[in-house]
Amino acid sequence: MTETANFVINHDQLLEHWQGHRALTRKIIEAFPEDKLFSYSVGGMRPFSEMAMEMIDMAEGGISGIVSGEWKSLDDLGHVNGNMPKTKDELLNVWDKVTGQINQLWPQISSERFQEVDLAFGLYEGPVYATLFYFIDNEIHHRGQAYVYLRSLGITPPPFWERN
Amino acid sequence: MTETANFVINHDQLLEHWQGHRALTRKIIEAFPEDKLFSYSVGGMRPFSEMAMEMIDMAEGGISGIVSGEWKSLDDLGHVNGNMPKTKDELLNVWDKVTGQINQLWPQISSERFQEVDLAFGLYEGPVYATLFYFIDNEIHHRGQAYVYLRSLGITPPPFWERN
Repeated sequence: MTETANFVINHDQLLEHWQGHRALTRKIIEAFPEDKLFSYSVGGMRPFSEMAMEMIDMAEGGISGIVSGEWKSLDDLGHVNGNMPKTKDELLNVWDKVTGQINQLWPQISSERFQEVDLAFGLYEGPVYATLFYFIDNEIHHRGQAYVYLRSLGITPPPFWERN
Repeated sequence: MTETANFVINHDQLLEHWQGHRALTRKIIEAFPEDKLFSYSVGGMRPFSEMAMEMIDMAEGGISGIVSGEWKSLDDLGHVNGNMPKTKDELLNVWDKVTGQINQLWPQISSERFQEVDLAFGLYEGPVYATLFYFIDNEIHHRGQAYVYLRSLGITPPPFWERN
C-alpha cells in the first residue's frame, strides 16, 4: 500500500487521455479547408499539415520505441523522408493508422518501463513517462496554434473540451 | 504489487511536470512587450493577459478545491470579479503567489483523492486527476496560442522544451 499511495493515474486512464487529445486533433485537421491545411501560416510558422505530421512521427516512432526500446533516428521518420501526405484524406488515413498502432502496442508497456530512463529517438534522455507526456504536450501546443490559424481564417474550431 | 503494476507517474513527478509547464508560461508572459500583453490579438482571440489570468484562476481555485473539496463558483474567481492585474509585474506577482500555493497544498492530495469523482467549480464532473490534467492542458493550449502572437509580433519565444 505504501507504493500505491504515491501514484496518480493508471495505464488505461493515460491511454484514454492521449487518445482523447488525438481525437480532438483529428477534428482540427478536418476543420481546415483542404488548401489552407497545407499552406496557411501566421507569423511565419509551419502550415498545420506539417505540425500534424510531426505529431504522427512522434506518436508512431514513439510508441514503437517505448515498447521495444529501439528508436528510429529523427532522419528516419516518415515526413522527414519526404513521405508527406498530399491531401487531407491521406493525412487522416495515416492519423487513423497510428491510432490503431497505439491501441495495439499500449498494453505491452509495464509500470517499470514508464519509470525507466531511455534515450528517445537516440537524442532525448528522460524517464519514459516524461517522453510520453512530451508527445502529448507537443500535440496540445501545436494544436493550440491551429486554433489561432482557424480563428484568423474565420472558422470556429471544435471546443477544446471535446475529446471523443 | 498487482496494484502498483498499473500506475504511470507518482505525485512528485506530476507536481514537477505542472510546475515545469508553469515556469515556461511565466517566461512567455515575460516575453511579451508590456502593452501587447494586454492588447495584442490574432483572429479576434483574447489578449494573452486574459488567458494567463484564466490559468491563474483555474490553478488557484483548482488546487484549493482539489485539496478541500470546496469549490468556488466561476463567478467568484479573481479575474471575473474584475481583479485584473494592470501591469506585467502585477501579473507575474500573482503568478508567483499561486506557484507557492500549489507547492504548499500539493502534499495534501492523496492517491485516493486523485481517483475520486468531484464536481470541479460546481460544474465539471470527473475524477480529480482528469480535472488537474485539464488545468495543465488548458495552459499548454493557450500558451501555444501565445507563441503565434509572439511570432507574429516578430518575437522569438523561449523553446517549448525549456521547463526551468
